[in-house]
Amino acid sequence: MRITEIGEFGLIERFRKSIKTDSSVIKGSGDDCAVLAFDKDHYQLFTCDMIVEGQDFTRRDNLRLIGRKALAISLSDIAACGGIPRYAVVSLAMPSKTTVEAADNITKGMVSLAREYKVNIVGGDISKAAGLIIDVAMTGIVEKKNLVLRSGAKIGDIVFVSGDLGGSIRGKHLKFIPRVKEARYLVENFKINAMIDISDGLTQDLGHILESSKVGGVIYESLVPVSKEAKNLEDALCAGEDFELLFTVTRKEAKKIIKLKGAQFKPIGEIMDKRYGSKMIGKDGREKNLVPMGFRHF
Amino acid sequence: MRITEIGEFGLIERFRKSIKTDSSVIKGSGDDCAVLAFDKDHYQLFTCDMIVEGQDFTRRDNLRLIGRKALAISLSDIAACGGIPRYAVVSLAMPSKTTVEAADNITKGMVSLAREYKVNIVGGDISKAAGLIIDVAMTGIVEKKNLVLRSGAKIGDIVFVSGDLGGSIRGKHLKFIPRVKEARYLVENFKINAMIDISDGLTQDLGHILESSKVGGVIYESLVPVSKEAKNLEDALCAGEDFELLFTVTRKEAKKIIKLKGAQFKPIGEIMDKRYGSKMIGKDGREKNLVPMGFRHF
Repeated sequence: MRITEIGEFGLIERFRKSIKTDSSVIKGSGDDCAVLAFDKDHYQLFTCDMIVEGQDFTRRDNLRLIGRKALAISLSDIAACGGIPRYAVVSLAMPSKTTVEAADNITKGMVSLAREYKVNIVGGDISKAAGLIIDVAMTGIVEKKNLVLRSGAKIGDIVFVSGDLGGSIRGKHLKFIPRVKEARYLVENFKINAMIDISDGLTQDLGHILESSKVGGVIYESLVPVSKEAKNLEDALCAGEDFELLFTVTRKEAKKIIKLKGAQFKPIGEIMDKRYGSKMIGKDGREKNLVPMGFRHF
Repeated sequence: MRITEIGEFGLIERFRKSIKTDSSVIKGSGDDCAVLAFDKDHYQLFTCDMIVEGQDFTRRDNLRLIGRKALAISLSDIAACGGIPRYAVVSLAMPSKTTVEAADNITKGMVSLAREYKVNIVGGDISKAAGLIIDVAMTGIVEKKNLVLRSGAKIGDIVFVSGDLGGSIRGKHLKFIPRVKEARYLVENFKINAMIDISDGLTQDLGHILESSKVGGVIYESLVPVSKEAKNLEDALCAGEDFELLFTVTRKEAKKIIKLKGAQFKPIGEIMDKRYGSKMIGKDGREKNLVPMGFRHF
Protein backbone atom coordinates (compact mmCIF):
# COMPACT_ATOMS: atom_id res chain seq x y z
CA MET A 1 0.00 0.00 0.00
CA ARG A 2 1.36 3.41 -0.97
CA ILE A 3 1.39 6.34 1.44
CA THR A 4 -0.87 8.24 -0.98
CA GLU A 5 -3.67 5.83 0.01
CA ILE A 6 -3.62 6.77 3.70
CA GLY A 7 -2.58 10.37 3.01
CA GLU A 8 -0.53 12.87 4.98
CA PHE A 9 -2.83 12.88 8.02
CA GLY A 10 -3.04 9.09 8.02
CA LEU A 11 0.74 8.93 8.08
CA ILE A 12 0.98 11.44 10.91
CA GLU A 13 -1.61 9.48 12.90
CA ARG A 14 0.37 6.23 12.43
CA PHE A 15 3.55 7.99 13.51
CA ARG A 16 1.88 9.50 16.58
CA LYS A 17 0.52 6.15 17.71
CA SER A 18 3.99 4.58 17.69
CA ILE A 19 5.47 7.24 19.99
CA LYS A 20 5.54 7.28 23.78
CA THR A 21 6.53 10.39 25.70
CA ASP A 22 7.24 11.06 29.37
CA SER A 23 5.33 13.32 31.76
CA SER A 24 7.40 16.41 30.88
CA VAL A 25 5.65 16.47 27.50
CA ILE A 26 2.50 18.51 28.08
CA LYS A 27 1.47 18.17 24.43
CA GLY A 28 3.41 16.12 21.88
CA SER A 29 2.78 15.74 18.16
CA GLY A 30 -0.66 16.98 17.08
CA ASP A 31 -0.69 20.73 17.62
CA ASP A 32 1.17 23.63 15.99
CA CYS A 33 4.02 23.13 18.47
CA ALA A 34 5.02 20.58 21.06
CA VAL A 35 4.54 21.93 24.59
CA LEU A 36 7.22 20.96 27.11
CA ALA A 37 7.77 21.51 30.84
CA PHE A 38 10.11 24.48 31.35
CA ASP A 39 9.85 26.36 34.67
CA LYS A 40 7.22 27.30 37.23
CA ASP A 41 5.47 29.84 35.02
CA HIS A 42 6.47 28.87 31.47
CA TYR A 43 6.33 26.12 28.90
CA GLN A 44 8.82 25.65 26.10
CA LEU A 45 7.41 25.31 22.57
CA PHE A 46 9.20 23.22 19.90
CA THR A 47 8.33 22.95 16.20
CA CYS A 48 9.90 22.13 12.84
CA ASP A 49 9.00 22.78 9.21
CA MET A 50 10.63 21.65 6.00
CA ILE A 51 10.23 23.40 2.65
CA VAL A 52 11.12 21.63 -0.56
CA GLU A 53 11.81 22.98 -4.07
CA GLY A 54 8.98 22.13 -6.41
CA GLN A 55 6.53 21.74 -3.50
CA ASP A 56 6.70 24.86 -1.38
CA PHE A 57 8.48 27.14 -3.83
CA THR A 58 9.91 27.01 -7.34
CA ARG A 59 13.38 27.53 -8.71
CA ARG A 60 12.23 30.87 -10.09
CA ASP A 61 11.11 32.35 -6.77
CA ASN A 62 13.16 35.05 -5.10
CA LEU A 63 15.80 33.33 -2.95
CA ARG A 64 15.59 35.85 -0.13
CA LEU A 65 11.86 35.19 0.09
CA ILE A 66 12.45 31.42 0.08
CA GLY A 67 14.84 31.79 3.03
CA ARG A 68 12.35 34.10 4.69
CA LYS A 69 9.50 31.62 4.22
CA ALA A 70 11.46 28.76 5.80
CA LEU A 71 11.74 30.71 9.04
CA ALA A 72 8.33 32.39 8.84
CA ILE A 73 6.42 29.09 8.89
CA SER A 74 7.93 28.15 12.25
CA LEU A 75 7.33 31.66 13.62
CA SER A 76 3.69 31.20 12.65
CA ASP A 77 3.54 27.90 14.57
CA ILE A 78 4.94 29.51 17.72
CA ALA A 79 2.41 32.35 17.29
CA ALA A 80 -0.47 29.86 16.99
CA CYS A 81 0.34 28.58 20.50
CA GLY A 82 0.51 32.12 21.88
CA GLY A 83 4.27 32.00 22.35
CA ILE A 84 7.39 34.09 21.88
CA PRO A 85 9.91 32.64 19.39
CA ARG A 86 13.45 32.33 20.78
CA TYR A 87 15.92 29.99 19.03
CA ALA A 88 16.19 28.33 15.63
CA VAL A 89 18.47 25.81 13.94
CA VAL A 90 18.51 25.51 10.17
CA SER A 91 19.32 22.56 7.88
CA LEU A 92 20.00 23.52 4.30
CA ALA A 93 20.44 21.12 1.37
CA MET A 94 21.50 22.52 -2.00
CA PRO A 95 22.77 21.30 -5.36
CA SER A 96 26.57 21.62 -5.91
CA LYS A 97 25.99 24.06 -8.73
CA THR A 98 24.43 26.61 -6.33
CA THR A 99 26.29 29.93 -6.40
CA VAL A 100 27.67 31.59 -3.29
CA GLU A 101 25.48 34.57 -4.12
CA ALA A 102 22.39 32.34 -4.12
CA ALA A 103 23.35 30.81 -0.76
CA ASP A 104 23.95 34.32 0.60
CA ASN A 105 20.51 35.44 -0.54
CA ILE A 106 18.77 32.50 1.14
CA THR A 107 20.68 33.33 4.32
CA LYS A 108 19.89 37.03 4.11
CA GLY A 109 16.16 36.39 3.86
CA MET A 110 16.31 34.18 6.90
CA VAL A 111 18.64 36.32 9.00
CA SER A 112 16.75 39.54 8.39
CA LEU A 113 13.42 37.99 9.45
CA ALA A 114 15.12 36.42 12.49
CA ARG A 115 16.41 39.82 13.52
CA GLU A 116 12.97 41.40 13.08
CA TYR A 117 11.40 38.77 15.35
CA LYS A 118 14.33 38.64 17.81
CA VAL A 119 14.94 34.96 17.11
CA ASN A 120 18.48 33.66 17.58
CA ILE A 121 19.67 31.39 14.78
CA VAL A 122 22.06 29.22 16.78
CA GLY A 123 23.15 26.42 14.51
CA GLY A 124 22.67 24.47 11.36
CA ASP A 125 23.65 21.74 8.99
CA ILE A 126 24.59 21.90 5.31
CA SER A 127 24.01 19.02 2.87
CA LYS A 128 24.01 18.35 -0.84
CA ALA A 129 20.77 17.47 -2.63
CA ALA A 130 19.31 17.60 -6.13
CA GLY A 131 17.03 20.51 -5.21
CA LEU A 132 16.94 23.16 -2.52
CA ILE A 133 15.50 22.01 0.82
CA ILE A 134 15.36 24.04 4.02
CA ASP A 135 14.32 22.75 7.41
CA VAL A 136 13.89 25.09 10.36
CA ALA A 137 13.40 23.86 13.92
CA MET A 138 12.42 26.51 16.45
CA THR A 139 11.88 26.75 20.17
CA GLY A 140 9.83 29.40 21.90
CA ILE A 141 8.53 30.23 25.31
CA VAL A 142 4.99 30.82 26.54
CA GLU A 143 3.56 31.73 29.95
CA LYS A 144 1.48 28.81 31.19
CA LYS A 145 -1.56 31.07 31.42
CA ASN A 146 -1.14 32.21 27.82
CA LEU A 147 -0.73 28.82 26.14
CA VAL A 148 -3.38 28.16 23.47
CA LEU A 149 -3.93 24.79 21.83
CA ARG A 150 -6.23 23.57 19.07
CA SER A 151 -8.22 21.60 21.60
CA GLY A 152 -9.82 24.33 23.71
CA ALA A 153 -12.79 25.43 21.57
CA LYS A 154 -16.10 25.49 23.50
CA ILE A 155 -19.68 25.28 22.22
CA GLY A 156 -20.94 28.82 21.69
CA ASP A 157 -17.45 30.25 20.98
CA ILE A 158 -17.12 32.72 18.13
CA VAL A 159 -14.58 31.82 15.40
CA PHE A 160 -12.25 34.58 14.16
CA VAL A 161 -9.55 34.95 11.50
CA SER A 162 -6.73 37.51 11.53
CA GLY A 163 -6.82 38.51 7.85
CA ASP A 164 -7.91 37.83 4.30
CA LEU A 165 -7.83 34.33 2.90
CA GLY A 166 -7.07 32.75 -0.47
CA GLY A 167 -4.80 33.40 -3.42
CA SER A 168 -1.62 33.10 -1.35
CA ILE A 169 0.01 31.24 -4.26
CA ARG A 170 0.15 34.64 -6.02
CA GLY A 171 2.84 35.78 -3.60
CA LYS A 172 1.58 35.87 -0.02
CA HIS A 173 2.91 32.35 0.66
CA LEU A 174 6.42 33.81 0.33
CA LYS A 175 5.74 37.16 1.98
CA PHE A 176 3.16 36.54 4.69
CA ILE A 177 3.56 38.22 8.05
CA PRO A 178 3.91 35.63 10.82
CA ARG A 179 1.21 36.73 13.27
CA VAL A 180 3.42 36.68 16.37
CA LYS A 181 2.60 40.24 17.42
CA GLU A 182 -1.12 39.71 16.84
CA ALA A 183 -1.16 36.41 18.71
CA ARG A 184 0.70 37.90 21.67
CA TYR A 185 -1.74 40.81 21.73
CA LEU A 186 -4.63 38.34 21.77
CA VAL A 187 -3.32 36.06 24.54
CA GLU A 188 -2.23 39.00 26.70
CA ASN A 189 -5.59 40.78 26.47
CA PHE A 190 -8.26 38.12 25.96
CA LYS A 191 -9.00 34.55 26.92
CA ILE A 192 -8.33 32.68 23.66
CA ASN A 193 -9.86 29.20 23.87
CA ALA A 194 -8.36 27.59 20.74
CA MET A 195 -5.99 28.73 18.00
CA ILE A 196 -4.24 27.39 14.89
CA ASP A 197 -2.48 29.02 11.95
CA ILE A 198 -4.07 28.48 8.55
CA SER A 199 -1.44 26.52 6.67
CA ASP A 200 -3.56 23.77 5.10
CA GLY A 201 -6.59 25.93 4.23
CA LEU A 202 -9.48 27.30 6.33
CA THR A 203 -11.75 24.24 6.09
CA GLN A 204 -8.95 21.83 6.91
CA ASP A 205 -7.52 23.89 9.77
CA LEU A 206 -10.97 24.61 11.21
CA GLY A 207 -11.42 20.84 10.98
CA HIS A 208 -8.28 20.38 13.12
CA ILE A 209 -9.75 22.66 15.82
CA LEU A 210 -13.14 20.94 15.72
CA GLU A 211 -11.64 17.46 15.89
CA SER A 212 -9.15 18.29 18.66
CA SER A 213 -11.85 20.11 20.65
CA LYS A 214 -14.49 17.44 19.96
CA VAL A 215 -17.02 20.03 18.79
CA GLY A 216 -18.82 21.08 15.62
CA GLY A 217 -18.83 24.44 13.91
CA VAL A 218 -20.53 26.70 11.42
CA ILE A 219 -19.10 29.48 9.28
CA TYR A 220 -20.98 32.12 7.29
CA GLU A 221 -20.03 32.50 3.65
CA SER A 222 -20.80 36.21 3.77
CA LEU A 223 -18.31 36.69 6.63
CA VAL A 224 -15.30 34.87 5.12
CA PRO A 225 -12.78 37.60 4.24
CA VAL A 226 -11.81 36.68 0.68
CA SER A 227 -8.54 38.30 -0.41
CA LYS A 228 -8.25 40.32 -3.63
CA GLU A 229 -5.87 37.66 -4.92
CA ALA A 230 -8.26 34.74 -4.34
CA LYS A 231 -9.81 33.28 -7.49
CA ASN A 232 -13.08 32.55 -5.73
CA LEU A 233 -14.66 31.51 -2.43
CA GLU A 234 -13.37 27.95 -2.72
CA ASP A 235 -9.84 29.31 -3.03
CA ALA A 236 -10.33 31.27 0.23
CA LEU A 237 -11.78 28.21 1.96
CA CYS A 238 -9.27 25.62 0.82
CA ALA A 239 -6.10 26.95 -0.79
CA GLY A 240 -3.84 27.09 2.26
CA GLU A 241 -0.61 28.91 3.17
CA ASP A 242 -2.48 32.04 4.28
CA PHE A 243 -0.73 31.77 7.65
CA GLU A 244 -3.46 33.82 9.30
CA LEU A 245 -4.59 32.96 12.82
CA LEU A 246 -7.86 31.07 13.24
CA PHE A 247 -9.10 31.24 16.84
CA THR A 248 -12.15 30.91 19.04
CA VAL A 249 -13.28 32.94 22.09
CA THR A 250 -16.43 33.16 24.19
CA ARG A 251 -19.22 35.43 22.95
CA LYS A 252 -18.34 37.92 25.72
CA GLU A 253 -14.69 38.14 24.64
CA ALA A 254 -15.80 38.25 21.00
CA LYS A 255 -17.78 41.45 21.61
CA LYS A 256 -14.63 43.15 22.87
CA ILE A 257 -12.54 41.90 19.94
CA ILE A 258 -15.10 43.06 17.38
CA LYS A 259 -14.97 46.58 18.86
CA LEU A 260 -11.17 46.85 18.43
CA LYS A 261 -9.92 49.60 16.12
CA GLY A 262 -8.80 48.51 12.66
CA ALA A 263 -11.00 45.41 12.81
CA GLN A 264 -8.09 43.14 11.94
CA PHE A 265 -9.78 40.17 13.60
CA LYS A 266 -12.90 39.09 11.73
CA PRO A 267 -15.66 36.87 13.14
CA ILE A 268 -16.62 34.20 10.63
CA GLY A 269 -18.65 31.63 12.56
CA GLU A 270 -19.48 29.79 15.71
CA ILE A 271 -18.58 26.61 17.57
CA MET A 272 -21.47 24.12 17.78
CA ASP A 273 -22.19 20.78 19.36
CA LYS A 274 -20.23 17.89 17.85
CA ARG A 275 -23.44 16.32 16.51
CA TYR A 276 -24.04 19.41 14.37
CA GLY A 277 -20.91 18.59 12.36
CA SER A 278 -19.12 21.20 10.27
CA LYS A 279 -21.24 23.46 8.06
CA MET A 280 -21.30 26.68 6.09
CA ILE A 281 -24.35 28.94 5.73
CA GLY A 282 -24.28 30.24 2.14
CA LYS A 283 -25.13 33.77 1.06
CA ASP A 284 -28.47 32.30 0.02
CA GLY A 285 -29.08 31.22 3.60
CA ARG A 286 -28.71 27.54 2.78
CA GLU A 287 -26.71 25.22 5.01
CA LYS A 288 -24.01 23.09 3.32
CA ASN A 289 -21.67 20.51 4.76
CA LEU A 290 -18.15 21.92 5.07
CA VAL A 291 -15.89 19.12 3.88
CA PRO A 292 -12.30 19.72 4.97
CA MET A 293 -10.35 20.27 1.76
CA GLY A 294 -7.03 21.88 1.20
CA PHE A 295 -3.37 21.25 0.75
CA ARG A 296 -2.00 17.82 1.57
CA HIS A 297 1.41 16.52 0.58
CA PHE A 298 -0.01 13.02 -0.01
CA MET B 1 31.26 31.72 -7.97
CA ARG B 2 29.91 28.30 -7.04
CA ILE B 3 29.64 27.08 -3.44
CA THR B 4 32.03 24.25 -4.30
CA GLU B 5 34.79 26.88 -4.56
CA ILE B 6 34.45 28.06 -0.94
CA GLY B 7 33.40 24.61 0.33
CA GLU B 8 31.15 23.51 3.16
CA PHE B 9 33.22 25.16 5.89
CA GLY B 10 33.52 28.38 3.88
CA LEU B 11 29.74 28.46 3.58
CA ILE B 12 29.24 27.84 7.29
CA GLU B 13 31.72 30.61 8.10
CA ARG B 14 29.85 33.06 5.83
CA PHE B 15 26.57 32.08 7.45
CA ARG B 16 27.97 32.48 10.97
CA LYS B 17 29.32 35.95 10.23
CA SER B 18 25.90 37.18 9.14
CA ILE B 19 24.19 36.12 12.37
CA LYS B 20 23.83 38.12 15.57
CA THR B 21 22.65 36.50 18.78
CA ASP B 22 21.64 37.87 22.18
CA SER B 23 23.33 37.26 25.54
CA SER B 24 21.25 34.15 26.30
CA VAL B 25 23.25 32.33 23.61
CA ILE B 26 26.33 30.97 25.43
CA LYS B 27 27.62 29.33 22.23
CA GLY B 28 25.91 29.66 18.85
CA SER B 29 26.84 28.03 15.56
CA GLY B 30 30.31 26.47 15.55
CA ASP B 31 30.21 23.59 18.02
CA ASP B 32 28.42 20.22 18.06
CA CYS B 33 25.40 21.90 19.67
CA ALA B 34 24.28 25.41 20.42
CA VAL B 35 24.46 26.17 24.15
CA LEU B 36 21.63 28.27 25.57
CA ALA B 37 20.77 29.79 28.95
CA PHE B 38 18.35 27.50 30.80
CA ASP B 39 18.33 27.70 34.62
CA LYS B 40 20.74 28.33 37.47
CA ASP B 41 22.60 25.03 37.09
CA HIS B 42 21.89 23.94 33.50
CA TYR B 43 22.27 24.89 29.88
CA GLN B 44 19.99 23.73 27.09
CA LEU B 45 21.67 22.17 24.04
CA PHE B 46 20.13 22.47 20.55
CA THR B 47 21.28 20.75 17.35
CA CYS B 48 19.97 19.61 13.96
CA ASP B 49 21.13 17.14 11.31
CA MET B 50 19.75 16.36 7.89
CA ILE B 51 20.36 13.10 6.04
CA VAL B 52 19.74 12.88 2.31
CA GLU B 53 19.28 9.85 0.04
CA GLY B 54 22.31 9.37 -2.19
CA GLN B 55 24.52 11.30 0.24
CA ASP B 56 24.14 9.81 3.68
CA PHE B 57 22.48 6.52 2.69
CA THR B 58 21.34 4.73 -0.43
CA ARG B 59 17.97 3.47 -1.57
CA ARG B 60 19.14 -0.07 -0.87
CA ASP B 61 19.99 0.49 2.80
CA ASN B 62 17.75 -0.94 5.50
CA LEU B 63 15.00 1.61 6.21
CA ARG B 64 14.95 0.99 9.96
CA LEU B 65 18.67 1.74 10.05
CA ILE B 66 18.16 4.90 7.99
CA GLY B 67 15.56 6.12 10.50
CA ARG B 68 17.88 5.10 13.31
CA LYS B 69 20.82 7.01 11.80
CA ALA B 70 18.80 10.22 11.46
CA LEU B 71 18.23 10.31 15.22
CA ALA B 72 21.62 8.84 16.19
CA ILE B 73 23.58 11.71 14.61
CA SER B 74 21.86 14.26 16.84
CA LEU B 75 22.28 12.03 19.90
CA SER B 76 26.00 11.97 19.11
CA ASP B 77 26.07 15.80 18.97
CA ILE B 78 24.42 16.09 22.38
CA ALA B 79 26.91 13.52 23.72
CA ALA B 80 29.86 15.52 22.35
CA CYS B 81 28.82 18.46 24.55
CA GLY B 82 28.48 16.20 27.59
CA GLY B 83 24.69 16.47 27.66
CA ILE B 84 21.57 14.38 28.14
CA PRO B 85 19.28 14.22 25.08
CA ARG B 86 15.64 15.17 25.83
CA TYR B 87 13.35 16.15 22.93
CA ALA B 88 13.37 15.73 19.15
CA VAL B 89 11.26 16.92 16.23
CA VAL B 90 11.51 15.16 12.87
CA SER B 91 10.93 16.42 9.33
CA LEU B 92 10.49 13.67 6.77
CA ALA B 93 10.32 14.15 2.99
CA MET B 94 9.47 11.13 0.83
CA PRO B 95 8.48 10.34 -2.76
CA SER B 96 4.72 9.70 -3.33
CA LYS B 97 5.47 6.15 -4.37
CA THR B 98 6.78 5.31 -0.86
CA THR B 99 4.86 2.43 0.71
CA VAL B 100 3.23 2.65 4.12
CA GLU B 101 5.43 -0.27 5.18
CA ALA B 102 8.55 1.70 4.21
CA ALA B 103 7.38 4.76 6.15
CA ASP B 104 6.60 2.51 9.12
CA ASN B 105 10.10 1.02 9.02
CA ILE B 106 11.76 4.43 8.99
CA THR B 107 9.61 5.39 11.97
CA LYS B 108 10.33 2.16 13.83
CA GLY B 109 14.09 2.63 13.56
CA MET B 110 13.76 6.13 14.92
CA VAL B 111 11.23 5.39 17.66
CA SER B 112 13.10 2.39 19.01
CA LEU B 113 16.38 4.33 19.32
CA ALA B 114 14.49 7.25 20.91
CA ARG B 115 13.06 4.88 23.50
CA GLU B 116 16.48 3.39 24.22
CA TYR B 117 17.94 6.86 24.84
CA LYS B 118 14.83 8.20 26.62
CA VAL B 119 14.36 10.94 24.04
CA ASN B 120 10.82 12.23 23.48
CA ILE B 121 9.89 12.63 19.82
CA VAL B 122 7.41 15.47 20.17
CA GLY B 123 6.55 16.62 16.68
CA GLY B 124 7.31 16.58 13.03
CA ASP B 125 6.54 17.61 9.51
CA ILE B 126 5.88 15.49 6.42
CA SER B 127 6.70 16.63 2.87
CA LYS B 128 6.98 15.23 -0.61
CA ALA B 129 10.37 15.10 -2.36
CA ALA B 130 12.07 13.13 -5.14
CA GLY B 131 14.22 11.22 -2.63
CA LEU B 132 14.05 10.40 1.06
CA ILE B 133 15.26 13.18 3.37
CA ILE B 134 15.13 13.18 7.16
CA ASP B 135 15.94 16.11 9.41
CA VAL B 136 16.10 15.71 13.17
CA ALA B 137 16.36 18.66 15.54
CA MET B 138 17.10 17.79 19.16
CA THR B 139 17.37 19.58 22.47
CA GLY B 140 19.24 18.30 25.49
CA ILE B 141 20.26 19.46 28.89
CA VAL B 142 23.68 19.70 30.51
CA GLU B 143 24.82 20.76 33.97
CA LYS B 144 26.87 23.95 33.60
CA LYS B 145 29.84 22.24 35.23
CA ASN B 146 29.68 19.33 32.77
CA LEU B 147 29.46 21.29 29.51
CA VAL B 148 32.31 20.49 27.11
CA LEU B 149 33.06 22.48 23.96
CA ARG B 150 35.58 22.08 21.15
CA SER B 151 37.42 25.13 22.40
CA GLY B 152 38.81 24.00 25.75
CA ALA B 153 41.91 22.00 24.75
CA LYS B 154 45.07 23.05 26.63
CA ILE B 155 48.72 22.61 25.71
CA GLY B 156 49.96 19.35 27.24
CA ASP B 157 46.49 17.71 27.15
CA ILE B 158 46.32 14.08 26.03
CA VAL B 159 44.00 13.35 23.08
CA PHE B 160 41.71 10.30 23.34
CA VAL B 161 39.22 8.51 21.09
CA SER B 162 36.36 6.29 22.29
CA GLY B 163 36.68 3.48 19.72
CA ASP B 164 38.06 2.19 16.45
CA LEU B 165 38.16 4.39 13.38
CA GLY B 166 37.67 3.91 9.65
CA GLY B 167 35.60 1.74 7.36
CA SER B 168 32.29 3.02 8.71
CA ILE B 169 30.93 3.01 5.13
CA ARG B 170 30.84 -0.82 5.47
CA GLY B 171 27.96 -0.55 7.93
CA LYS B 172 28.94 1.32 11.06
CA HIS B 173 27.64 4.64 9.66
CA LEU B 174 24.13 3.15 9.91
CA LYS B 175 24.60 1.20 13.14
CA PHE B 176 27.00 3.22 15.27
CA ILE B 177 26.31 3.59 18.98
CA PRO B 178 25.82 7.26 19.90
CA ARG B 179 28.29 7.70 22.74
CA VAL B 180 25.89 9.33 25.18
CA LYS B 181 26.53 6.91 28.04
CA GLU B 182 30.30 7.13 27.52
CA ALA B 183 30.28 10.93 27.34
CA ARG B 184 28.18 11.19 30.50
CA TYR B 185 30.56 8.81 32.28
CA LEU B 186 33.48 11.00 31.20
CA VAL B 187 32.01 14.37 32.22
CA GLU B 188 30.70 13.02 35.53
CA ASN B 189 34.04 11.46 36.53
CA PHE B 190 36.78 13.51 34.87
CA LYS B 191 37.53 17.06 33.82
CA ILE B 192 37.15 16.88 30.04
CA ASN B 193 38.74 19.96 28.46
CA ALA B 194 37.49 19.63 24.86
CA MET B 195 35.31 17.14 22.99
CA ILE B 196 33.81 16.57 19.53
CA ASP B 197 32.24 13.58 17.79
CA ILE B 198 34.10 12.26 14.76
CA SER B 199 31.66 12.86 11.94
CA ASP B 200 33.95 14.39 9.32
CA GLY B 201 36.98 12.16 9.93
CA LEU B 202 39.68 12.19 12.65
CA THR B 203 42.03 14.70 10.98
CA GLN B 204 39.22 17.11 10.19
CA ASP B 205 37.54 16.87 13.60
CA LEU B 206 40.86 17.11 15.45
CA GLY B 207 41.40 20.18 13.27
CA HIS B 208 38.12 21.64 14.60
CA ILE B 209 39.33 21.19 18.20
CA LEU B 210 42.77 22.67 17.45
CA GLU B 211 41.33 25.65 15.62
CA SER B 212 38.63 26.38 18.22
CA SER B 213 41.14 25.98 21.06
CA LYS B 214 43.88 27.94 19.24
CA VAL B 215 46.43 25.17 19.83
CA GLY B 216 48.44 22.64 17.85
CA GLY B 217 48.52 18.87 18.21
CA VAL B 218 50.35 15.67 17.45
CA ILE B 219 49.02 12.14 17.03
CA TYR B 220 50.98 8.90 16.88
CA GLU B 221 50.29 6.62 13.94
CA SER B 222 50.97 3.56 16.09
CA LEU B 223 48.27 4.62 18.57
CA VAL B 224 45.42 5.30 16.10
CA PRO B 225 42.91 2.46 16.63
CA VAL B 226 42.23 1.32 13.08
CA SER B 227 39.02 -0.71 12.80
CA LYS B 228 38.94 -4.14 11.12
CA GLU B 229 36.70 -2.63 8.44
CA ALA B 230 39.10 0.19 7.54
CA LYS B 231 40.90 -0.22 4.23
CA ASN B 232 44.06 1.41 5.55
CA LEU B 233 45.40 4.08 7.89
CA GLU B 234 44.22 6.90 5.65
CA ASP B 235 40.69 5.52 5.87
CA ALA B 236 40.91 5.60 9.68
CA LEU B 237 42.28 9.15 9.62
CA CYS B 238 39.90 10.67 7.10
CA ALA B 239 36.84 8.63 6.23
CA GLY B 240 34.35 10.07 8.70
CA GLU B 241 31.04 8.95 10.21
CA ASP B 242 32.75 6.95 12.96
CA PHE B 243 30.76 8.93 15.51
CA GLU B 244 33.31 8.14 18.20
CA LEU B 245 34.21 10.77 20.78
CA LEU B 246 37.48 12.66 20.37
CA PHE B 247 38.45 14.47 23.58
CA THR B 248 41.33 16.01 25.49
CA VAL B 249 42.20 15.95 29.21
CA THR B 250 45.20 16.95 31.32
CA ARG B 251 48.01 14.44 31.70
CA LYS B 252 46.89 13.79 35.28
CA GLU B 253 43.32 12.93 34.24
CA ALA B 254 44.70 10.92 31.31
CA LYS B 255 46.55 8.59 33.67
CA LYS B 256 43.28 7.76 35.43
CA ILE B 257 41.43 7.20 32.13
CA ILE B 258 44.15 4.90 30.77
CA LYS B 259 43.83 2.73 33.91
CA LEU B 260 40.07 2.19 33.42
CA LYS B 261 38.97 -1.39 32.86
CA GLY B 262 38.12 -2.37 29.28
CA ALA B 263 40.35 0.39 27.89
CA GLN B 264 37.56 1.78 25.76
CA PHE B 265 39.19 5.22 25.67
CA LYS B 266 42.44 5.19 23.76
CA PRO B 267 45.15 7.88 23.96
CA ILE B 268 46.36 8.83 20.48
CA GLY B 269 48.28 12.05 20.88
CA GLU B 270 48.92 15.34 22.64
CA ILE B 271 47.95 18.98 22.43
CA MET B 272 50.86 21.27 21.49
CA ASP B 273 51.52 24.95 21.08
CA LYS B 274 49.74 26.55 18.13
CA ARG B 275 53.07 27.23 16.40
CA TYR B 276 53.77 23.50 16.29
CA GLY B 277 50.82 23.03 13.92
CA SER B 278 49.13 19.68 13.43
CA LYS B 279 51.37 16.64 12.91
CA MET B 280 51.53 12.87 12.98
CA ILE B 281 54.52 10.83 14.12
CA GLY B 282 54.69 7.82 11.79
CA LYS B 283 55.54 4.26 12.79
CA ASP B 284 59.00 5.03 11.39
CA GLY B 285 59.39 7.89 13.87
CA ARG B 286 59.14 10.55 11.20
CA GLU B 287 57.01 13.66 11.68
CA LYS B 288 54.50 14.50 8.91
CA ASN B 289 52.08 17.39 8.60
CA LEU B 290 48.54 16.28 9.34
CA VAL B 291 46.42 17.96 6.70
CA PRO B 292 42.76 17.94 7.69
CA MET B 293 41.05 15.74 5.12
CA GLY B 294 37.75 13.97 5.23
CA PHE B 295 34.13 14.20 4.26
CA ARG B 296 32.76 17.51 3.03
CA HIS B 297 29.46 18.01 1.26
CA PHE B 298 31.01 20.66 -1.00
